[in-house]
Amino acid sequence: MSETSLSPLDRRELRARVSHALTGFLDRQELVLREISADLVEPAAALREFLDGGKRMRPAFCYWGWRAAGGARAAEALDDAAFTAAASLELLQASALIHDDYMDGSDTRRGKPAVHKRFEALHAAGGWEGPDVRFGAAAAILLGDITLTWCDEMFTRSGFDAARIHAARPIFDLMRSEVMAGQYLDVIAQSRGLTVASPREILERAETVIRYKSAKYTIERPLQLGAALATGDGDDSGPVNQALSAYGLPLGEAFQLRDDVLGVFGDPATTGKPAGDDLREGKQTVLVALAAERADTEQLKLLREDLGDAALDASGVAALQEVIVGTGALDAVERRIAERTELALAALEHAQIEQEARAVLAELAIAATSRQV
Amino acid sequence: MSETSLSPLDRRELRARVSHALTGFLDRQELVLREISADLVEPAAALREFLDGGKRMRPAFCYWGWRAAGGARAAEALDDAAFTAAASLELLQASALIHDDYMDGSDTRRGKPAVHKRFEALHAAGGWEGPDVRFGAAAAILLGDITLTWCDEMFTRSGFDAARIHAARPIFDLMRSEVMAGQYLDVIAQSRGLTVASPREILERAETVIRYKSAKYTIERPLQLGAALATGDGDDSGPVNQALSAYGLPLGEAFQLRDDVLGVFGDPATTGKPAGDDLREGKQTVLVALAAERADTEQLKLLREDLGDAALDASGVAALQEVIVGTGALDAVERRIAERTELALAALEHAQIEQEARAVLAELAIAATSRQV
Repeated sequence: MSETSLSPLDRRELRARVSHALTGFLDRQELVLREISADLVEPAAALREFLDGGKRMRPAFCYWGWRAAGGARAAEALDDAAFTAAASLELLQASALIHDDYMDGSDTRRGKPAVHKRFEALHAAGGWEGPDVRFGAAAAILLGDITLTWCDEMFTRSGFDAARIHAARPIFDLMRSEVMAGQYLDVIAQSRGLTVASPREILERAETVIRYKSAKYTIERPLQLGAALATGDGDDSGPVNQALSAYGLPLGEAFQLRDDVLGVFGDPATTGKPAGDDLREGKQTVLVALAAERADTEQLKLLREDLGDAALDASGVAALQEVIVGTGALDAVERRIAERTELALAALEHAQIEQEARAVLAELAIAATSRQV
Repeated sequence: MSETSLSPLDRRELRARVSHALTGFLDRQELVLREISADLVEPAAALREFLDGGKRMRPAFCYWGWRAAGGARAAEALDDAAFTAAASLELLQASALIHDDYMDGSDTRRGKPAVHKRFEALHAAGGWEGPDVRFGAAAAILLGDITLTWCDEMFTRSGFDAARIHAARPIFDLMRSEVMAGQYLDVIAQSRGLTVASPREILERAETVIRYKSAKYTIERPLQLGAALATGDGDDSGPVNQALSAYGLPLGEAFQLRDDVLGVFGDPATTGKPAGDDLREGKQTVLVALAAERADTEQLKLLREDLGDAALDASGVAALQEVIVGTGALDAVERRIAERTELALAALEHAQIEQEARAVLAELAIAATSRQV
């Protein structure tokens, strides 16, 4: 089916192309900032370092959405543009993480100080006036803000013509609103905790958060965005978009469920986060909601009391892990992950998309959901 | 020169058109949010109320930039589009203020609770888990974020064709980067305070902040943005853009200098802020920098010690006001305001722009700089 001469990229090559596009964009932005003031070199450097990592998942799905919808076949010359548009999603993600880390009080990110901590240190080292913490917060909020505007700037100037960018905008816009709505619902869910709702309600809420904050944002919308850039059709009810949705939504759920399992049972050496970190943060995941639904009185009491306790020690973490295993919640989530992944792969099989993209998307599905504990 | 049949709007009418455009946009966005979750009604309502006020200065300059460059003459049918694009700037401003209020710890905005305080109260009323303050912060950060993305969504979908929006994008993008850069420089300046630099450096920093955070953002760029939508030419070195810049930059400076004077000497009944609020916040304005430059040893000591003292009482405020008057800094700033305003009006006189726009822009210049103490 495919007539393109582009080879299917391996994942390392894709990451390199995405990083290259980001570097080019940041080089130009840094020139703009330097012209305003030398004091802006520091935030520019902070963003550059922040972006120098990550799995580039959203760009991967965006690029392969473009290829799936025949982008490379129609206009191979636009391969660079496709990578640039795809890479712009890393700026949205960076903005969200910079703000998230501050909101959650997470002090590290991939083993390095979070942005607000980096700027706290700058303040302290300068012996400046006012509290360090406040300066760190302001710098992180503003850096997240400028990064958010740079996402749409990079996307808009990716190299596609104005009409094509315009056609893809509805999906781009929806994706941004959805992820922020999902984040707010997540914050609300965490604040409400397990005490004020029935287990069924808690589960429904957790499912809504997963859908908007992860499934759509990480997989479905990036795929559809890439496809819209290929077809010039931003209507997400078209046949290609429907097919990508049938693959992307269950896969996105499975991906997040795997992440939730890792957040509770993951090895710090692999996850880069302390063991049981999600339990200390009190994250209201599907995993936790299923545990609450199935818990007996004593187990529920433990969940309610200890979940979200920032000072929880290793034995406290172990006790909560035991509840999650004992109630059968972990097994149930593993089943869900397997089911959703199969649904995604089945949808992929029947999707009317380019062959090469089909093969790569199948690979990506496995990679996204089978990460080891 | 003008062949348009549109009458020059009075300011009230302009505000009504801008509000109408915002209401229409928010109505559509609220439908999207409601479909995700009923829990999103509250943040949508918060934004709507937040936007229900303000002087609509940036939209006014954007709209009159469009008219100045012959927008109405070329395509009167796009009058609605021009108001919608202009109104989108209110979303950028709302996002900045929502984040600013949180960063500054300002608890009120136009006599109502700031957004983070509103959500703190929601948390408290719900008897939810975790600290109120943290929830308020997260809600304000996320609401500011979604509002920031809605700014470019509204601008992009204002009704101009894709090519024209694309042509105007470089100015739109630069405006956003500049204002955020200016805000960061402002935060840095406040942190560094008066102690670590020479008076000359302090003044230069304050002038840079004024240029990017106010003069360009509030007046020059909105004007040029409107003009680019009219001409389809986003190069800010073109003759119309140069003329609008020659008017907008000094006017923007004068506007901010007036604001700085009001922040120190303004009547709370008029400004809506406590008397001397800028002094308590330790704002590093041109006014303060000029006072520091001209101060004798005793005056400088007072400035260094009391500026930025959040607990400053009425007599403390009066003492600092006395320094600012006594050093001649207030007179110097008033002279600057007068000079800059005259420069702006002179540039306007020679600008090759539509007659009606010239008259309205002259009026706006007076309104922006002669607000009473």
